[in-house]
Amino acid sequence: MTTPVLHPFVKGHGAENDFVILPDPAGHLALTAAEAIRLCDRRTGLGADGILRAVRCAAEPEAAAMTDAEWFMDYRNADGTLGAMCGNGLRLLARYLVDAGHHQPGAFLIATRAGIRQVHARSTGPVTIDMGRPRLPGSGGIQVTAAGRTWSATHVDMGNPHAVVFLEDPRLAGDLRTAPTVTPAAAYPHGTTIEFVTTRSPYNLQLRVYERGVGETRACGTGACAAVAAARAQRARPPLAAHYTVDLPGGRLNIAVRPDGAMELTGPAVVTAQGTVSLTLPALEQQAACAAGRR
Amino acid sequence: MTTPVLHPFVKGHGAENDFVILPDPAGHLALTAAEAIRLCDRRTGLGADGILRAVRCAAEPEAAAMTDAEWFMDYRNADGTLGAMCGNGLRLLARYLVDAGHHQPGAFLIATRAGIRQVHARSTGPVTIDMGRPRLPGSGGIQVTAAGRTWSATHVDMGNPHAVVFLEDPRLAGDLRTAPTVTPAAAYPHGTTIEFVTTRSPYNLQLRVYERGVGETRACGTGACAAVAAARAQRARPPLAAHYTVDLPGGRLNIAVRPDGAMELTGPAVVTAQGTVSLTLPALEQQAACAAGRR
Repeated sequence: MTTPVLHPFVKGHGAENDFVILPDPAGHLALTAAEAIRLCDRRTGLGADGILRAVRCAAEPEAAAMTDAEWFMDYRNADGTLGAMCGNGLRLLARYLVDAGHHQPGAFLIATRAGIRQVHARSTGPVTIDMGRPRLPGSGGIQVTAAGRTWSATHVDMGNPHAVVFLEDPRLAGDLRTAPTVTPAAAYPHGTTIEFVTTRSPYNLQLRVYERGVGETRACGTGACAAVAAARAQRARPPLAAHYTVDLPGGRLNIAVRPDGAMELTGPAVVTAQGTVSLTLPALEQQAACAAGRR
Repeated sequence: MTTPVLHPFVKGHGAENDFVILPDPAGHLALTAAEAIRLCDRRTGLGADGILRAVRCAAEPEAAAMTDAEWFMDYRNADGTLGAMCGNGLRLLARYLVDAGHHQPGAFLIATRAGIRQVHARSTGPVTIDMGRPRLPGSGGIQVTAAGRTWSATHVDMGNPHAVVFLEDPRLAGDLRTAPTVTPAAAYPHGTTIEFVTTRSPYNLQLRVYERGVGETRACGTGACAAVAAARAQRARPPLAAHYTVDLPGGRLNIAVRPDGAMELTGPAVVTAQGTVSLTLPALEQQAACAAGRR
């Protein structure tokens, strides 16, 4: 049994990777995969690459242990699957939290399924986020096939999995309307996002991204960091600290590598619209029962 | 010089042909083609097949003579060009006018660039609109080419131009990512929408539409009427009055032909979201000057 309700939303994008934010401070919204898919439909819904449910950590069982942060980013891809982290989404969420008065401009913490992230949002303009330290679990034999070509890939973990491929020309990856193949499948038991990287100069990369659960997107924050991490791994002695620019179809992201190896990503975060959207949710009784059961 | 402003919007769809309505009762909104394109962008804007500016006829020079209607539908395609009529858009606009309390449920008139149209909207549910009488200006030698095949086309004028092709299987038109070619170009000096029609039974048509200024769409109200008009023209003695169903990728439309030849189209009209959207408009001073000049 379902009942339609009007729920507040904010729509925006980071480097043209676009999201619908559903503010849910008290954690009352039992968002289903089916409803996320419907919301992300670009004609019958609002249209987006993903949904960001903004819930206070205190009201979200998944985030209850992350007490240093006030808000949790419950991220879902356009196909309804849960996501651990999303750099462009996190920037937009930080912009929303400042715009809505939930945080003072400056540095603050946001909880994600990949852990707590520090963000820095002024009262307007681009947003910087701490992307953490990349992990390179070893890439023995991982290969990506697209448009009839096969490349060796570097496995990078940014809280979510990446397979990074270097190629001379981004067009060699083809039209990416169908998912590239990654082998061995066991390397990514939950699938992976795939980066096609062209090195323009030691500190400037060009990038196309095939996002797990979405398809080719205009930009991907964790993908940009994974590309930088893989590019650094190719060098015998990469500089301890350095600044990189990564150009994606949706715009430019700036990545600073700190001496401790952690990455800071700076990029646009733009709110385009806000209002109310019709959601079809489990009946309120069911929701209340479900909420009670979860606490 | 431009200045960003927050403007109310309503988003919705008719048979998955989707629109952003911009309520502008007093005609203050100087919407530019560039801003319509930006709004229709599916990642950096709200995303839509077209924009419907809802303005009172008394406040709109283009509609000042259409005094029988209270509201004018200022329709723009996703490429920023002005449109005369749009059946799915008109249904959605009627739904909005009733929902917003601008009209009582029932029958009322809306002005369009193709003239005044009668609509019938109950308090909820599908909406019926009077689509007027199709005109068949004669089709001598008009041909449509798509996916390497060429068909003869019937020229139908529903207030906007149509080239209707009959084919055995809708897939023969190919993927329609590129515009079909219509010859002679002189037949449609301002371009045309193209219908690919498969006759399933005398009163049931299957339809794909390539809309002028948009590309392939999920549904097109005037296109569905044009297809029925062309199908009737193929018969020596079509029944004076009849009911047709037209199946499009986005859903089913019902078309009733009245004894006087006029068509009534009934189909879904669904509001999905509403709120405020950031518009970049000419500076208010310019707008005011412009508005003054137009009156």
